[in-house]
Order: sequence, then structure tokens, then C-alpha cells
Amino acid sequence: MTDILLRDDTNGIATLTLNAPERLNALSDAMLAALQAQIDALSGDRETRVVILQGNGKAFCAGHDLKEMQQGRQAEDGGRAYFADLFARCASVMTGLMRLPQPVIAAPHGIATAAGCQLVASCDMAIAAEGTRFGVNGVNIGLFCSTPMVALTRNIPRKQAFEMLTTGAFIDTDRATALGLINRAVPHDSLDPETRALAETVAGKLNPAVRIGKRTFYEQIEMGMSDAYAHAGAVMVENMLWRDTNEGISAFLEKRPPDWQA
Amino acid sequence: MTDILLRDDTNGIATLTLNAPERLNALSDAMLAALQAQIDALSGDRETRVVILQGNGKAFCAGHDLKEMQQGRQAEDGGRAYFADLFARCASVMTGLMRLPQPVIAAPHGIATAAGCQLVASCDMAIAAEGTRFGVNGVNIGLFCSTPMVALTRNIPRKQAFEMLTTGAFIDTDRATALGLINRAVPHDSLDPETRALAETVAGKLNPAVRIGKRTFYEQIEMGMSDAYAHAGAVMVENMLWRDTNEGISAFLEKRPPDWQA
Amino acid sequence: MTDILLRDDTNGIATLTLNAPERLNALSDAMLAALQAQIDALSGDRETRVVILQGNGKAFCAGHDLKEMQQGRQAEDGGRAYFADLFARCASVMTGLMRLPQPVIAAPHGIATAAGCQLVASCDMAIAAEGTRFGVNGVNIGLFCSTPMVALTRNIPRKQAFEMLTTGAFIDTDRATALGLINRAVPHDSLDPETRALAETVAGKLNPAVRIGKRTFYEQIEMGMSDAYAHAGAVMVENMLWRDTNEGISAFLEKRPPDWQA
Repeated sequence: MTDILLRDDTNGIATLTLNAPERLNALSDAMLAALQAQIDALSGDRETRVVILQGNGKAFCAGHDLKEMQQGRQAEDGGRAYFADLFARCASVMTGLMRLPQPVIAAPHGIATAAGCQLVASCDMAIAAEGTRFGVNGVNIGLFCSTPMVALTRNIPRKQAFEMLTTGAFIDTDRATALGLINRAVPHDSLDPETRALAETVAGKLNPAVRIGKRTFYEQIEMGMSDAYAHAGAVMVENMLWRDTNEGISAFLEKRPPDWQA
Repeated sequence: MTDILLRDDTNGIATLTLNAPERLNALSDAMLAALQAQIDALSGDRETRVVILQGNGKAFCAGHDLKEMQQGRQAEDGGRAYFADLFARCASVMTGLMRLPQPVIAAPHGIATAAGCQLVASCDMAIAAEGTRFGVNGVNIGLFCSTPMVALTRNIPRKQAFEMLTTGAFIDTDRATALGLINRAVPHDSLDPETRALAETVAGKLNPAVRIGKRTFYEQIEMGMSDAYAHAGAVMVENMLWRDTNEGISAFLEKRPPDWQA
Repeated sequence: MTDILLRDDTNGIATLTLNAPERLNALSDAMLAALQAQIDALSGDRETRVVILQGNGKAFCAGHDLKEMQQGRQAEDGGRAYFADLFARCASVMTGLMRLPQPVIAAPHGIATAAGCQLVASCDMAIAAEGTRFGVNGVNIGLFCSTPMVALTRNIPRKQAFEMLTTGAFIDTDRATALGLINRAVPHDSLDPETRALAETVAGKLNPAVRIGKRTFYEQIEMGMSDAYAHAGAVMVENMLWRDTNEGISAFLEKRPPDWQA
């Protein structure tokens, strides 16, 4: 594990910390590779129940590493192959967060811009430090935030997304909460404990139920109503047949704590 | 009509009242059957213009009947066939509310949890008593609310839905209004008259227009933009050719009340 | 250019002004034709960077021209062919606004009802004068707003859209902002300067980036997540390979203004 991305594991909660503060935690090739490696590791990790994603330094994440991208132009094809690969790797990380079996909580502070804002939008939940500013401001330098837009437009209403994308304007945490980009904002000093409290709440639930629920969340959301119900219904049947769900319901009916094995 | 579900018909408004207060109006086999029977009857009912769905006792609806579900495990297959049938019957009721020709207004009070919250999300509109708490808290007993999620994620933004589903946390009526789960909240004493006033407003419109509009609402919402416009345009042509619509527009232009036959 | 629709071009911003105030800027055959002509002209217009859509008189737009529609009934088929053509022409204008390469900002005041509300919903962004009232109130005259519904339900949450459509009730600018129908409201005296300021902000961005961004916005929003990322990623590669984007990123890294050719 390179120190560009730190990982701490405590009580089944993995905290990933973007750790390139001098570059505002830019999503460089190295950072994307480190994130992908962690996503790959977490995919098969039965011990970890929840993931927190945060950043060291002044900013959560300021997006792609522009210096590195400009260097990519020196290839014979002007960078075409490198850029195609870069955006594919970036999309793999973003969708990888959604495909992880564990819920992922973003804990942004400072700024979350361009692909950094996409990172927030791609996590399952987000608690931000008050004062965090969110933007998809690539348009300011002539590079429209087309891939961040994929995540953003699935989080907030159309007109507000369109304005952010074409003006590059930032929104604050009140606006981000009202629009649905984050779950809520807390004072900066409370960011760690509040994020951790949310993670612990989720980690305290029956783990296989959370996992099957997260997977089904993103599967059904892209289906029509009939298919979605057919799929979700089949999932509930499986869920009902688990030993631990039987125990969970029995315990509830008997007003005692459940004795779960998972 | 068994008294587990009461029905009152007044001025073209059918009020269905969940009436198993001792079980917090749980969606037992009997309750689902009673709801389905009413949905089937209402489907062909030309007199009823609007439906109100409310609950007797302390709660609107606390979801599935857990005792009954646990009894289902005694079958040879451990309940698999029963559960599959149960969730299919439940989905049939939920989507049946959307397929009814009449607009359906939920009037929850107290609590609306799990499939009870799904019931609110599945109605076309909802007015809640202040103080009502909404949750999809099956995760607390190891049974992720996968089917309620289908309705919930088509009502409120993603991150807020995800948090409710994985934490089991309740939201209050202010939050439910802001997120879009309900249209508004009113003081408990005003719940009946406010719900009735909304029902009467809708019942006072040209009934075939409301019916064709509701059907088209859910049809077009699952289509791409081009298909949606083609479909909605064809619907408007039909609507324009009705005698009563001709009369409605003429009356408006002549500043007199319409003489509608429907 | 007929004076039913005025056009002013200043600094790359085209302002279209609905100019039939005595008919509350109704979308008559003539108005739809004038709008379509401008949309066709703007489609190939490389000079115009942003479009503003506003209305003269007391209202932004009160929807279709009901008198003209009633006259359409005198045809042998009772108007069927005329109505089918009318709704097709109207949908062509509405979707044409989304397909325009330029961002379109609606600047409604007074009232925006039925197809006039659809016009606001169909623009990419909207700033309204405080006091503007929005409604899809065709149901009041027996003509359900099925085509306006297509645009409306892609702007605001379901239950709120359903209530507006079946009650005909108006919403004010605070509610329209909270629901996502408009970006914000400003005092009436500030409507022109605020709308113009937003237009100038967008016009000041690299034009091809804004154009490719707007096109991709509506393309990806109808796709599943995987297809959306594949498409948006390919768009970003093209965007990166432009001379002006290279210059924009270099200028940013060198802390100087970009020297753009577009």
C-alpha cells in the first residue's frame, strides 16, 4: 500500500484517506491505481462492513491531475490512447464504488471539484464538513465535466446540474444538502465522529442484508417498475431464507437482541 | 367486505381504511387480499373518481405481518414458495394502486414503516399528519427493504433513500415533504378535511381526463423523451376529440361553467 | 422575422421574445412556426453562444391558443389530423430547445401555464421573476396536460407533479425553486440583468465545450450507468484533443488567461 492512499481498519470499518495534499488529492494515475487496488481488495473482503472515503490536507479532491494529463499529449497520437485509458480507469473507480459490497460514505471537506465532486456523487452516502464547496468546473478551462456529469445528474435535479456544469459555479453545503448531493453537513470538528457514527450504525446491521440491499439498490434503479419489483421480490425471498434473518425477526418478535452469526 | 379493510363511498370518493389497529395495520395475507379485492373492484368502477387510503389506530401501517411470515417457514420448503407468493401479492397491490384509473391519496399518520412506507410511496399523492414518522427499517431485523426500495427510490433522491434503507432511521414530515415522499403535512386534526378537500378538488375535474392523465403519467415516465412525447401527443389528440373537452374549452372561452356529461 | 417573435442578438446572446401579449403569448400555429424557424436557424448558427427565451406583456406564456384549437374542429375529421400535427409541432419545438447546441435560459414572469410551463421545463435553465405562477392546469377545462407532463416529470418529483397535473393548482417561485422547476427567482426589476448575467457567464466559456457538454447531458441522462460512462468518456477524449482545451489547461497551470480561438 503506497502512502498516496492511506487505509485504516477499525471495527470492520475501512477508512481510505486520499493523501496527496500538495496536489489537493488529485486523481493522478497513481491515485486511481491505488483506489482501484483498494476497491479490488474490498470486493472480496468479508470482514469489512463499511468504507469511509476522506482526504488529507486542505481539500477533499480537486479532480484529475492536470499536469499529468498535459504530459500525456507527448505520445505519438497526441494522447488519445492515454486519455481513453485514463477516463476508463476513472469510470472503473467511480462505478467500482457503487459495485462494492460495502456501503461507501464520502466525507468531503474544503473543496470537491470536477472528478472530486464526481467521487462524492459516486459514493452511496456523503457527510460534508460545513464550508465545503462543490463544483464541476472543468468548463472554466475548456474541458466540460462530461464524466462527472454522469454521477451528478443521477444525484440532483436537471436544471441545477446544468447550471453547475455550464457556469462552473460552486455550491455550498446547504445547497448540496437541499439538492441531494450530500446527506448533510456538520461542523468541521464533527466530521470524523459523525461520519464514523453513521458508519458504525450501518456496520451494526446484519451484514449480508446490507450487501444484498446495496447491490439491489443500483440494479433495480435502472429497471422499469415491473422488472424492478420482480427482481427485488426475488431478493427478498432469498433474504427471508437466511438463518440470521429468521433469528432477527424472531428476536424482534420476542423483544430480545438477535444472536447473529454473520 | 371483511372489516379488516373498511370502505366508505361519498360523492364519488372511496375511502379505504386499514382496520387492524391491534397489529398496526400490518399487511397480512388477509389485508393484502382485502386491498387486492378493492383494487380489482375499483378498476372497473366508473362511479368512483378518487381513492383515499388511511389507517385506523395509532399507525398508518407498520409493514408486513412478521408473525405470519415466520409461520410460513413451517412449510416443507422452509417458506420459499410462500414468501415468493407473498412478495408477488404485495407488489401486485403496490403497482395496482398506480394502475388504478382513480388517483389515490395516502393519508398516513403515526408511523408508516417498511411496506407501510412503500404504500405511501406507491400512492399518487400523500398528505400526512404532522408527527408521522417514515422509515424503511427492515434492515434492523436483518430483512433489507428491497421491495419498498423500488417505490421509495422513485420518490426521493438516491443518497437520502440509501441512508434510510441502510440505517433504518426514521424521517419526520418536514423531511418527507422536502424529499418528495409526501405532498405536505397538516395538523392531525386537519388530516381528514385536508385530504378530503384534495380528493374533492380532483373529483371535480373531468373524470375521463384525470383517468387518461394518470395512466399516461406512469406510462411516459419510463420512456425516453422521444417515445414519451409520441405517446403523450397521441393521448392529447384523443382527449381533444371528446365531446366534454370540446365543451370544457368552449365554456372557458365563453367564461361560463362547463356542462359536462361525464 | 415576423414580429410575433422578436429576436435580439448582442454579444453572442440571442434573446427570443414571445410577442403576442394580447393573447398571453399563446403557442398559436404562428408562434410555434416562428419558434421552430428560430430553432432551425440557431441549430447551424456558430456565432450564437446562448439563447434567452422571454415574453412581452403580462405573462410569459399561457399555453396553447385555445380559440385556434377550437377552430380546428371544423375539419371533416373533427380536427384529428390538425391536432396530431399541432402536438407534433409543439413537441418538435420543446425537444428542439433541448437539441439546440446553445444553452437556453427561460426567463418567465407573470404566469407560465400548460404548454407555457412546459416551455420553462424544456429550457436548460430558468430564472423567474418573483411572483411568477406556474401551473399545468389543462385539467380544469377537461384537457389533461399530457405533453407538458413529459417535460415536467423530468424536472420535479413525482408526487408534486401529479398534484399539479390533477388539481390544476399553481405553484409560486419559492416552490418552483425548491422542486427544481427553476434555478432561482429574482425581483422583477432584476430579471433582465440577472438572466443576462447568467447568459454572459456561459457565453464566456469555451463554446465547443459547452456545446458538446449540452448534447452529452441529454444523451447520457437516458442511458444506464455503464453506457453513460462509455459515452461520456469518449466525449471527454475528443474534448481533451482540441487545441483550445490544451490551451485552456496550460493557461490554468501557468496562471494566465487562455488564448482561445473558438
